[in-house]
Order: sequence, then C-alpha cells, then structure tokens
Amino acid sequence: MAYFPDIPKIVYEGSKSKNPLAFKHYNPDEVIEGKTMRDHMRFGAAYWHVMRNSLSDPFGGGTAVTPWDDQSDSVDNAKKRADVFFEFLEKIDIDYYCFHDRDIAPELNDFTKSTEALNAVVDHLAGLQKSTGKKLLWGTACLFSHGRYSQGAGTSPDARVFAYAAAQVKAAMDATHKLGGEGYTFWGGREGYATLLNTDMKRELDHLAALLHMAVAYAKKIGYTGQFYIEPKPREPSTHQYDSDSAACLNFLRQYNLLDHFKLNIETNHATLAGHTMEHELTVALGSNALGSIDANQGDTLLGWDTDQFPSDLYGTTKVMLKVLEMGGFTTGGLNFDAKRRRESHEPIDLFYAHIGGMDAFARGLKTAAAIRADGRIEDFVKARYASWDSGIGQRIESGSTNFDELTEWVKQNGEPVVASGRQELLENILNELL
Amino acid sequence: MAYFPDIPKIVYEGSKSKNPLAFKHYNPDEVIEGKTMRDHMRFGAAYWHVMRNSLSDPFGGGTAVTPWDDQSDSVDNAKKRADVFFEFLEKIDIDYYCFHDRDIAPELNDFTKSTEALNAVVDHLAGLQKSTGKKLLWGTACLFSHGRYSQGAGTSPDARVFAYAAAQVKAAMDATHKLGGEGYTFWGGREGYATLLNTDMKRELDHLAALLHMAVAYAKKIGYTGQFYIEPKPREPSTHQYDSDSAACLNFLRQYNLLDHFKLNIETNHATLAGHTMEHELTVALGSNALGSIDANQGDTLLGWDTDQFPSDLYGTTKVMLKVLEMGGFTTGGLNFDAKRRRESHEPIDLFYAHIGGMDAFARGLKTAAAIRADGRIEDFVKARYASWDSGIGQRIESGSTNFDELTEWVKQNGEPVVASGRQELLENILNELL
Amino acid sequence: MAYFPDIPKIVYEGSKSKNPLAFKHYNPDEVIEGKTMRDHMRFGAAYWHVMRNSLSDPFGGGTAVTPWDDQSDSVDNAKKRADVFFEFLEKIDIDYYCFHDRDIAPELNDFTKSTEALNAVVDHLAGLQKSTGKKLLWGTACLFSHGRYSQGAGTSPDARVFAYAAAQVKAAMDATHKLGGEGYTFWGGREGYATLLNTDMKRELDHLAALLHMAVAYAKKIGYTGQFYIEPKPREPSTHQYDSDSAACLNFLRQYNLLDHFKLNIETNHATLAGHTMEHELTVALGSNALGSIDANQGDTLLGWDTDQFPSDLYGTTKVMLKVLEMGGFTTGGLNFDAKRRRESHEPIDLFYAHIGGMDAFARGLKTAAAIRADGRIEDFVKARYASWDSGIGQRIESGSTNFDELTEWVKQNGEPVVASGRQELLENILNELL
Amino acid sequence: MAYFPDIPKIVYEGSKSKNPLAFKHYNPDEVIEGKTMRDHMRFGAAYWHVMRNSLSDPFGGGTAVTPWDDQSDSVDNAKKRADVFFEFLEKIDIDYYCFHDRDIAPELNDFTKSTEALNAVVDHLAGLQKSTGKKLLWGTACLFSHGRYSQGAGTSPDARVFAYAAAQVKAAMDATHKLGGEGYTFWGGREGYATLLNTDMKRELDHLAALLHMAVAYAKKIGYTGQFYIEPKPREPSTHQYDSDSAACLNFLRQYNLLDHFKLNIETNHATLAGHTMEHELTVALGSNALGSIDANQGDTLLGWDTDQFPSDLYGTTKVMLKVLEMGGFTTGGLNFDAKRRRESHEPIDLFYAHIGGMDAFARGLKTAAAIRADGRIEDFVKARYASWDSGIGQRIESGSTNFDELTEWVKQNGEPVVASGRQELLENILNELL
Repeated sequence: MAYFPDIPKIVYEGSKSKNPLAFKHYNPDEVIEGKTMRDHMRFGAAYWHVMRNSLSDPFGGGTAVTPWDDQSDSVDNAKKRADVFFEFLEKIDIDYYCFHDRDIAPELNDFTKSTEALNAVVDHLAGLQKSTGKKLLWGTACLFSHGRYSQGAGTSPDARVFAYAAAQVKAAMDATHKLGGEGYTFWGGREGYATLLNTDMKRELDHLAALLHMAVAYAKKIGYTGQFYIEPKPREPSTHQYDSDSAACLNFLRQYNLLDHFKLNIETNHATLAGHTMEHELTVALGSNALGSIDANQGDTLLGWDTDQFPSDLYGTTKVMLKVLEMGGFTTGGLNFDAKRRRESHEPIDLFYAHIGGMDAFARGLKTAAAIRADGRIEDFVKARYASWDSGIGQRIESGSTNFDELTEWVKQNGEPVVASGRQELLENILNELL
Repeated sequence: MAYFPDIPKIVYEGSKSKNPLAFKHYNPDEVIEGKTMRDHMRFGAAYWHVMRNSLSDPFGGGTAVTPWDDQSDSVDNAKKRADVFFEFLEKIDIDYYCFHDRDIAPELNDFTKSTEALNAVVDHLAGLQKSTGKKLLWGTACLFSHGRYSQGAGTSPDARVFAYAAAQVKAAMDATHKLGGEGYTFWGGREGYATLLNTDMKRELDHLAALLHMAVAYAKKIGYTGQFYIEPKPREPSTHQYDSDSAACLNFLRQYNLLDHFKLNIETNHATLAGHTMEHELTVALGSNALGSIDANQGDTLLGWDTDQFPSDLYGTTKVMLKVLEMGGFTTGGLNFDAKRRRESHEPIDLFYAHIGGMDAFARGLKTAAAIRADGRIEDFVKARYASWDSGIGQRIESGSTNFDELTEWVKQNGEPVVASGRQELLENILNELL
Repeated sequence: MAYFPDIPKIVYEGSKSKNPLAFKHYNPDEVIEGKTMRDHMRFGAAYWHVMRNSLSDPFGGGTAVTPWDDQSDSVDNAKKRADVFFEFLEKIDIDYYCFHDRDIAPELNDFTKSTEALNAVVDHLAGLQKSTGKKLLWGTACLFSHGRYSQGAGTSPDARVFAYAAAQVKAAMDATHKLGGEGYTFWGGREGYATLLNTDMKRELDHLAALLHMAVAYAKKIGYTGQFYIEPKPREPSTHQYDSDSAACLNFLRQYNLLDHFKLNIETNHATLAGHTMEHELTVALGSNALGSIDANQGDTLLGWDTDQFPSDLYGTTKVMLKVLEMGGFTTGGLNFDAKRRRESHEPIDLFYAHIGGMDAFARGLKTAAAIRADGRIEDFVKARYASWDSGIGQRIESGSTNFDELTEWVKQNGEPVVASGRQELLENILNELL
Repeated sequence: MAYFPDIPKIVYEGSKSKNPLAFKHYNPDEVIEGKTMRDHMRFGAAYWHVMRNSLSDPFGGGTAVTPWDDQSDSVDNAKKRADVFFEFLEKIDIDYYCFHDRDIAPELNDFTKSTEALNAVVDHLAGLQKSTGKKLLWGTACLFSHGRYSQGAGTSPDARVFAYAAAQVKAAMDATHKLGGEGYTFWGGREGYATLLNTDMKRELDHLAALLHMAVAYAKKIGYTGQFYIEPKPREPSTHQYDSDSAACLNFLRQYNLLDHFKLNIETNHATLAGHTMEHELTVALGSNALGSIDANQGDTLLGWDTDQFPSDLYGTTKVMLKVLEMGGFTTGGLNFDAKRRRESHEPIDLFYAHIGGMDAFARGLKTAAAIRADGRIEDFVKARYASWDSGIGQRIESGSTNFDELTEWVKQNGEPVVASGRQELLENILNELL
C-alpha cells in the first residue's frame, strides 16, 4: 500500500468537518430504513476511469499523473495497476468494482494472447479480492474501442467481427464468473450506425439479439447465475445507438424475447443525452420490473456530449435514491461511479476528492429521500390525486368492466369534471424544505 | 366557390414555370414505379391548420386573415368553414383530409350539445365529401386543448376526466366511421406529465392502455375497420409525453398487447424533437411492420419546439419517400400536411404557396427516391456490405446454429478481421448526384 | 382586501415550520453582510404573470381561476385587477413590481384611446402605490403581442410600425416616469427574424439603435433618470432575436454607442436557452459594468422553450446571489419574478405557493452565498490560482511591458511549466458542504 | 508522386459522369459572375485532418490507414507527410492549405528543439510550395492539445503558460510569414473555462487581449501584412469558450480595441453548436465588415458535438456562397475544408471522395447562388419589403431627424398600419426552384 502514500483511509467525520479527505455525510454503518448506508448504496468504482482514463479529450492528450504506470502493454504493468486500484478501493472504502476486459488486461495482436493476458490478470484480481474482501459488481467486454468494432460488434456488417465479439464476450463472461461478478453488462457504443444510407437496421438488430441469446445460453452452460444488463445511451460514439433509452431497450428486449433475462443498467448522463431525466428512465424501467443497476454520474445539460461528471447535484442523488428505496433496494446492482475527473484535475488526489464528493452527495440523497418518505406529504398528495380510481367509475375502468357506451352515459349524467391543481410548486417547496 | 376568388385551381406547369400558383414537380397523373404520383403520396390537408390556426403564438395573438369566419361558436359558422375548406381542397388538388372533433365543430358547455354540434357538422362534411369526391384520411378527438385535460385525458389522475375522454373518443370514432375515415389517430399531447413529483406513471399507462383497448372493442362493435394509429412526440405541451418516439410507442403497444391493433403515425418534427432523424423513426416502425401514416412537415433543429413548418427540405422528402417505396406504399395512410404557415404569412394566398411548396418538395423527393432505386449503386453497396452474412459463419449465426464456443474456435483459426470502409462520404455524393 | 379572503399575510416562521403559507428562510429584516434580506433581494412581482397569464399554451386554452376578472377590455376591469394585484403584493410582502403597458391597460382599436386608458390606469396605480408604499422596479411597452409587430417593432420592415412602436414607448416611458419607475426595459421578442431570406439585418439593427437613441433623448427631455435595460433572449417567439445573449447585447450597445445608457436585465431561462449558464451571463455583464437587473426564474434544460418556472434550484439561486454580492448589490435593479405557475397549478393559492417558494429559494441562495464568502476557501483558491500574475513575468505581461521576443527568451530559460490541478471536484464539494 | 498510386488527378467530367473520382460540378475554370470557380472558392485543405487525423474518437482508437507514416516524432517522418500532403493537393486540385505548427512538425520535449523541428519542416514546405505553386491560406499555433494548455493558453491562470503560448505564436507567425501565408488564425479551444468556480473571467480576457495585441505588434515588427482571424466556437473542448459566436468575438474585439486588426474565420459546425445558422453568423460578421475566411464543413444538428463533417448539404453551400458573393468575394480568406472523414471511412481513397463531395457541393452552391441573384425575385421582394424606409417617415427616421413626439403625432394621424405578409413559404419555394 504505497501508491497513494499521503492519502489516509477516508472515514466519516460529520458535516462540521472541513477536512477535504473525510466523508461528511457518508457514514457507512449508519442505519436508514433498516439498512446500513453501505448496503443501500453498494458503491462501485469503475476500473476504466480510476486506472485507465488518461483524461485526454478529442482536442488534447492525456494529463493524468500516474507514476505507477510504465505505459507498456505488459501483464506485469496490468497487475501493478490492479494493485494500485485495490489500494484505492481500500482507502476510499468502496466495496465493489466494475471492469471492461481491455481495461484490466492489454489487447494484444492475437486473440489467444489477449485472452491469456486477461486470464493472468483475472487470477491476480481474484487474489486481491480474496485478500481485501472487495467484490465485482459487474464485468463487461469492451466492444467499442478497437478499430474492428468501428462499424459495430454484435451489429457489425461483417460476420467475422460478430464472431470476434462473441469470442471476446465469452472470455469476459468467464472472467466475470471466476471473479464472482454479480452481473454482466452489455453497453452498445458501436451498436448503432453512422448513417442510415449504408445500414440494414433490421438485420443488425436480429444479430444483436442473436448475440444476447448466445450469452444467455452460455451462462446456463457454465452455471453463471449473475444478472445480465443492457445499458441505454442514445448517441456517442455512434451517430445513433439502438439502445437509445430505457423504452428502446425494453422494446428490443420484448421484441426478441429477452426480457426475462435482462435488466437495465441506467446512467444519469445517458438519460439526459436522450432528453429524459434520470428519474424518468428509472421509472420506465421500474414499470417493467427491469431496473437492475445504476451508473452514477451526471452530465452538463448545456453540453451535448457525455461528460461523465461525478455526481454532485443533490436533487439528482435524492431522486435516484427515492427510486431505489421505492423498488426495495438493489439486489445484484449498485451505484457504480462511471465518472471521470475533469481533464484539469489531473493529480491522484483529485481521484479521492471526486469519489468523496460523489459518495457524500449520494449519502445526502439517501437521507433526503428517507426524510421525504418519513414526512409523507408528497406521497399523501399523490395518493389523494389518484383517489378517484379507487372506487366508483374509476375502479370500474381499472377492473376492465366498462366500455365507451357506459362511460358516455356516465358523462351525460355527471357533467363537466372540475380538476384539482397539480400543485407542482408546492411539491417543489416541500422537496426544498427537506433537502 | 367564392372564398378564394383570385386563386385558380393549381395545376402542373413543369419546372420551367415561374408561376407561383402552379406545381412545378407534382404532376398528379405521372406514373413512377407503376403508380401515379397521386397514389404514391395520398396527400392530406389538416383541417386544424388550414381552417382553425389563427397563427397566434405564446407571445402574440392571431394574425391569420379569415374573412369568412365570424369567430362565433355557431354550427353555421362551422359549416361555412367546411365549405371554405373543401374549396381549398379542390383548388389545391388534395384528395384527403384529417380532423379533430373540436376543429370541425365547436366545443359547447355541455357534452350532449357538443356532440350534437359535431354530428350536424359531420352530416355537412358527408355531403361535401360526396359532392367533391374528397376523402377522410383519419379522424381524431382533441384530448389536449380543453382545461379538463390539462393533466391528461386517458392518463388523467381524475377518473371523471378519463370518462369524458372515452365519451369524446366514442363520438369522434362515430364521426370518423360515418365519414368513411381510413384511419383513427390518438395523439397524446397531455398523456404524460408536468412533474414526476405528483405522478404515478405505471397507473397512468395502465389507464391509457385501457382506453385504447376500449377503442378496439368499440370499433369491433360498430364495424369500423379503419386503422388505429398512435403518434409519437417526446414533449410539448407536456414536459414529457409517454409516446415519446417510435420505440417508446412500440414498447407500450407490446407491453399492453396492442401491437396487433395499432400502427404509428409519424411526424418529422416530432422525430427531430426526440433527437432522431425522420428516417430513423420510419425505419424503427418498419422493423415492426408498424408504419401506418405520416404527418408531413419539418422542424427547425436549432429550435426546441414544434415549429410544424411546411416540408421544403428535399433531403428530407427524398428519405421519407425512399422508406415509403421500401414498404410498398401506403395502404390506409398518406402524407398529411400537419404544417402551418409562419405567423408572418397571414394572408389566405400563403396557404396555397405553402401547400404547393410541400407538394412539389415531396414530388421531387419521390422522383429522387425512384432515381436512387433505379440507379442501384447505394442498394448494391449495402447488399455487398452485409454479404458475409449470406454464407459461411455469417449464415450459421443468422440461422441460430452456432454458439460462443464454436465462434471462439473460429476466431482463433481465422484471426483478425479487416473491415471495409463504410463509405459514408461516397454515398452522400451519390445522393447529391441524384438530387 | 377581499380577493384572496383565505390567504393570510405571509410571514417568516423559520425552517421548522410546515405551514405552506409561511416563509421558511426569507426573513425580510434579517441582516446579512450589513444589509437586510429585503434590501439584498429587492423582489419584484411581474404584473403580466400574476394578473394576466391565463396559463394557456400552444396546445390548449387558459386554466387560471380569476373570479375577479370579467374578461372585458374596460378600464374598470383593469383597475379592479390592479386592486387585486396590490392585495397580492401586500400579502406576499413583495415591495416592487414590473409591468408592460398592455398588461395594466387594454389595447383598444385606436392609439389615442389606448393611451387614454393607459393613463387612467396609471393614475389608479399611482394611488395604490401611495397607499401601500409599493414601488415600480421597471416599466416597459409590449412590442411583441399585437399583430402589427409580428415582423418586428423597432426592426419592422415597415416604417409605419416603427413609428407606432416609438409612440407606444413614449407613452410607456411617460407612465414609468409618473410612477417613479427605477428602470425602463426593452425586450425584443420580435426584434429578430423568422427567416434571413426576407431580412436586411444591418438595416434592421440600425433602426433598433435609432429607437433606443430616441428613447435616451426623450428621457433627457422629460427628466427621466431611471436606468434603461435591454434583455437578452436568443429565440422564441422569433426564430432568432438580435439580442441573443449578454455578449450580443453588449456588442450591439458598443457598435451603436449606447453602452453609456443601457445595462442588461438578465433572465435565467433566457441564459440557458442561449446555451449559457446564468452565472456566465451575469459574469459577462459584470465584466462591462453592465449588470442592471435580473428576471428571476428557471427553465428546464431538457426543454427547448421558455418555461419561465419559479426559481427553486438552490444551486442557481446561490450562484446568482454570489454575483449580486460580488457587484456590491443592486442599485436600480432587483429580482423580478418573471415566472409563471404551471398550467396545472391553476388555483389562486398556487400564486402564493409559487412566490413563497421562489423567495425562500433566493433567501437560501443568499445565505449560502454569504457563507461561501465568509468561509473563504473558494476565494482563496482562486486567488492562489492566479498568483503568478501578481509578480514577475505575469506582472510584466499584465502591465504591457513585454513582447513576443522577450517571452520567447523567458521560455527558453524557464522550461516547461507544470500546471496545478483546477480542483473542480473539490470546489464542488465545498459548495455542497455550504449548501 | 507515389503515395496514392491508384488515384488519378481529379478533373471535371460534368454532371452525367458516374465516375466517383471526378468532379461533376466543380469546373475550376468556369466563369461565374466574372470570375472563375477557382477564384470564387479559394479552396483550402486542412493539414491536420488530411495528414494527422487518426480518426480516433473518445471511445475508440485510430482507424485511418496511413502506410507512409512511421508514427515517429522524427523530422524525416514529418517531411514525408508533407510530401504526401502535396501529392494530395495536386491530385485533388486544391490551391491552398492551412496548418497548426504541431501538425506539420513534432512537439518535442524542449521548446528550442520543437522550434528547430518546425523550422526544418517549414523549409521543406517552402520548397514544396515553390515546386507546386500551392499556397498557404493561413497558419496557426496549436494552443489546445498539450497538457500545459489544459486550463488555457492566453487565458491560462498560470503566467508561465501564457509565456509559452506567446513564444509558440511567435514561432508560428514566423513560419506563416516565411511561407507567405495570407492569414494567421487564433482558435481558442482552451480559452474559456471548465467551471466558473475557479475562474476569473475578466482577468483571463484581459490576458487574451494582451496576447493578441502582442501579435499585432510582432507582425508590424517583422513586416507581416497577412490578415489576423479569430474563430468563434461556443464550447468543446472547454465547457465554455469566450469566443463563443460571431457576436461574442466582435464584442471582445471592440472592448479591447482590436477590431481594426482582426476579422473572423467562421465555421459552419461551430455556428450550429452555438445555436445559430451559418448564414446568421456570416451576416453578423458582414455587418461589422469582419468576415474574413470560412471553415467549410457541416455538423449534425441532432448531435451536440463538433462532427466536422464534409459539407454536402446544398442548402448550406448555397447560403454560404450567397454571402460570399454579397461581400464581393474573398480577399485574404477562402473555403478551408476543416472537415474529417467518418471514423468508418478509414481508407486513403475516402479522403478523395470526401473532398470531391465538398468541392462539388460548393460548386453547386455557387451556381445556385448566382442563379438566385440573376433571377432577382428574392432580392426584389426584400427591396420592396423595406421600401417604406426609402422616403417619407421612414427616411426621416433613418436620417435621425425625428423624435418620439413627432412620431406620436404621426401615428395619431395615420392610424393602424397593415403589415404585408413575410412570404417565407413562397421564398422557400423559389429557393427550391433554383436549387
């Protein structure tokens, strides 16, 4: 444990503390609604952002200071990075992590060699998990970075690329299984198109479904019982991705008989890029019992690309935690920080500031969400707002025992309804009051 | 025929004509791919924009010059407007029209009186249809304008409002049936929410599905065999509408077992407001055999609201007609000009300029689309791009006869695939060449 | 005082109160940084939203319940509305108001009659001001609602419309002067274009400048010494407005030698529609000593139109108040609630909930801003970040005493600079800590 | 001439040609409005996109096939790239090019060494220019890619970084001068901020102005008489750039007394990212006689980042060329293809398809623009629309010889103006007719 020599283990010091390297709200063992904060959140760290993000952008090179990394493609370098990462997990007190195959191990010039390198690093990670008690939230295969996937992986126009993707998913599933991963995620950054002029959308979607069905079959074969996720994002890097939002994902899963096998991994920044609030996307998923896990970050709604900022907006974290409490908490999923420091925050200590901020923001979100539920005014208002459905004509409509003719007669007898105010401003005041 | 005394019947004069009151490309009887332009397009005029749009906007009052309209809520005034509208249809040479119940007849203070007024106007319209040969493309009920629907119609929190909506739909379906309407449309401008703080999304969607199922049952009862449509739009007037785009509509129809009974009525401006191109939305619908009809207009992608401009972009009309040709043409649907003149184009003659422009733009789109198909270069490129799926490993994947283990072996033996260029720039050059 | 019989005068009850008709944070007489909250905020109510907004939208009619209003164009009705408005001001404890000429008095068919009606209402308002002590923050002429202005007022292609606008501004300036208005605002909702195809931008801008110069001259003539403001907004109702953002306004004022006479009235929702944060727009204005007044509201950055919501986001109100404190407080300007209830919040009591929420949000913003300034960590960080400019080579650059040759030599001698982290995440954590 | 062995010199073959490696509309010597197409367009190629763009994106590595490039930082490799580039210029028949210092020569670990490498490559380029007759449209220094500039160059919080930037600009100006560059451009990709929390905007803008004043002084010293440009872009890579659009640039130039020395280099994709049409930005610049040069590309208005696509939209190229003709043609500027192939178009031949498409699109734009001017209907309409300003009250307003009192009297006597239709739809029809 020597890579962050000046950083202590981060602990809770309470809201009065001015120590920037302490939690002010995240008190892991504090019990809220019968469960510890730790168990409510199930925080995860993203290997790709913590260890592999150089902080380059389309107009400039990397800035991140990573003295432990020799920038080589060696397995030794990969193992060293894993060591650094686990030191980070311990010091920041995060229990879970997520990875792409190509983050943890190098992609070499040959599939067999790449897989061997992956397996070697996986063994090393298994050891680190054992010695620290850290766990794998989910694994995934990077099917978007290499040039072969520039036109798609499962939706490539080239069947050879599909085959390569399938082989890579198999190896990543093996790795996830070996590491006890509680889930396996598909994010389709290249599963879309650059232009419809050269694209057969239907055929591509058929292929994507075939890939997912093969994954389901393979899990069964190897006895992997973790949860599969797909992850909505509307665009970037593709001009248009097929899994554009929760509804598009659910439609795809329904069309191809995959809804029994997949849930959604929903990311705040992807939601807003699709023109939805995060709570909209979560609610849509919940409506089909398909909310699986969350990529915790935030975007800048004035910018049109995925900024993957650390979550700091307390309105956002409160609304996410309201939905998580509403569904009874995570089972296989958690709050994975798919978030990166700004390019200007290039020092190692910024990794800590960033995660502390995100964890504290969610801790306050959880406390506020619990306070809203305990307060009850908002819930009571909503209940009352729909009260006309609990009896009389409303109940008959809900039970399917009426029709247009009867309803027309009912209207003729009952006249013009007077609707009550929606009270948005009052409800927003209550939310602010409890924040 | 005296309401537009200075306007002649618009006829085709060819592309050299400088007469602003002539078609330069829309030659109704010209045959393309075995069918007349008239039959390819099935143009419709929107009663609401032509006769009832005062051209007000949120910051200013109406400007439209409508000397025939006494601004009263009388049935006589409504009938007079119908006369003007049919004169318009005749002079502009458009065969179909679409209406909302409350455009063609006044909403009075009492449901029974409103329905009587509706029926009286419908009788008048039936006479006009008979004498002119014009037809009804689709009818619909306006479930978004009256204050009672401010919080939803089928998704109102108030069951009494749902009942009112059901009664109104029944009457509008009766009217559509009587007028031989080839379709019936649901556009859910208020079927969404202003804030999730006061909303039970799942319960609201259950109710919306109940409304649609009642409509299906009612159609069966009265023997109405026209096509039902729902119409995607992401937002406006609501903060968020449930039928936000094609995928969301299809997901909803699948979830509630309605996909056998409904197709989509897709509008260009709604597509772009949802962050999609129109051709994306059409392709998504086609992939589920659910493209029904089209609301022909265009938006301004630099503006964030529904500008409902007349279609003039030839790239747009070409891409729409490519999809229409690809599906083998419209059956019940058509190209309905859900488009309004700019507020500054307030003179009656502007109605003609606007529709002429839209019709000519689609005529050129049709001709260009047919030329692209005849040319074959783009189609051939796409076919070749996917050729690897027609045999060998691709064919085995498509037929479902392989799996991850086999594909991994295949990759080990076949090595790194070299992908071919997607050639977007070349394809765009060909498109420009044929425009 | 009988129009809101069930509403008490709103008073401060402290943050523990659950009374929805009380302030929880706005304690008018509480002193912060040496000044009362009342004097820091200088809250204004917008006559147009409180009294004249029917809550219609482009897809539906008005919903607002206004039993005092007979919907007529009579001066008596206008006076009655003024009485209601002043009862509102008293009960909500807001000291200032703002108006458009056509909100307070009817636009009649003749300019002279309209002006007479305006003058009659102004006399009535003068009496109400005297009896209540309420004051006019600013007045303005509505140059965007009537059809004559559909193509511009000061920028109309028709000189007769410009003349009409000039006459209307004169009368509105007379009214503002008589009522002791501390400012006079120009918002150019139609000063822009629908399409550049029919527009001579340069000529239109010359005319707009001429209108403003005439206003300056007229103020001098009548002895009006209030502050002139122009108000940025990028679009809506026009496709593009010339005063699109702070920078565009300042550029226009500089180009036409008007910067000595005008400051900016900046609105949050207009800022975000232009792609800027509100604090960006305020900072740009401050950089030219041109921040005059603020239209306090908020938009929904996922929606593309002006939603004019009541300010409830505490991040937003904090950042606004930081800028207000930074400039040393308002002089002629204030925080005018250019905000409307949602269409679903149609009951009179919603007006109170909405304004209470906005006032409390700004009170918390002020308290947080003051806490940030007292804490000093953010300010100290910024100071240290620019420390290299306070001496050595930085000081020489700032003082203009060096050049490219010298700097090149300096670089050759001093080598590669190592930049420090920008610490965005840490600064965001501090902001959250103090919220 | 061996790097593109299979590519012939591209020549004009006419619109019937189906040869993808021929111009169909760009006939360099064809005379339009008294000048050859070549002289109207003054096409430039961007060294960075043609030679240095690997086609990586934020989610994946490079795909471009560049067999001539050994990927080293050697001066020999840089010279070889220059040879390839000039072969490209010759074959594509483009007369001008543009460069950043760090594209043409490597950035080495030491400023002196980097400058020596730059000078060596510049000598090589001078030879290539001499032997081919190609010319430099403009040069620039890359002040955005290296990590030292992550927080700004001229606006860095660190004076040492400013000094480095100044030294780099000096060297790039020397290079531009030596190569006879007709212009020198400043694009401020990092001249903005990531967050206002850590930013002193006023101080940063003062520094930026200081940098530009030093550049003006240095040009005078060395006798460089080319035109300086600044280039608007609202955001990306920064969260917000100061030079956000034409108006912001002009405001900055006016505020700091730089307007005599700078014109604007305006890019289509930057215009639309700022929420403006390209023709708006050009018109704003023309209104201050500040349109200098154009970066010819196009964006995807449904995407929120800079896609830098090759211009293919004929509406766009027509509107650009209308403005260029309106200003009497370029003097120092031209149409520089700041455009990149899609990541999927990774083969060398795609460079040719892309540029051919762009050149043909502008050739059609020029022909259409000239046709619109020859036709005269649009111009005549605009003239008539503003006719009221040419005499009577309009003329008096324009001449500054009237005031509010007189205009009020005039309105009282002349009554309500009746405004004429803006005829947007008719004008769009005429545009389509001539396309």
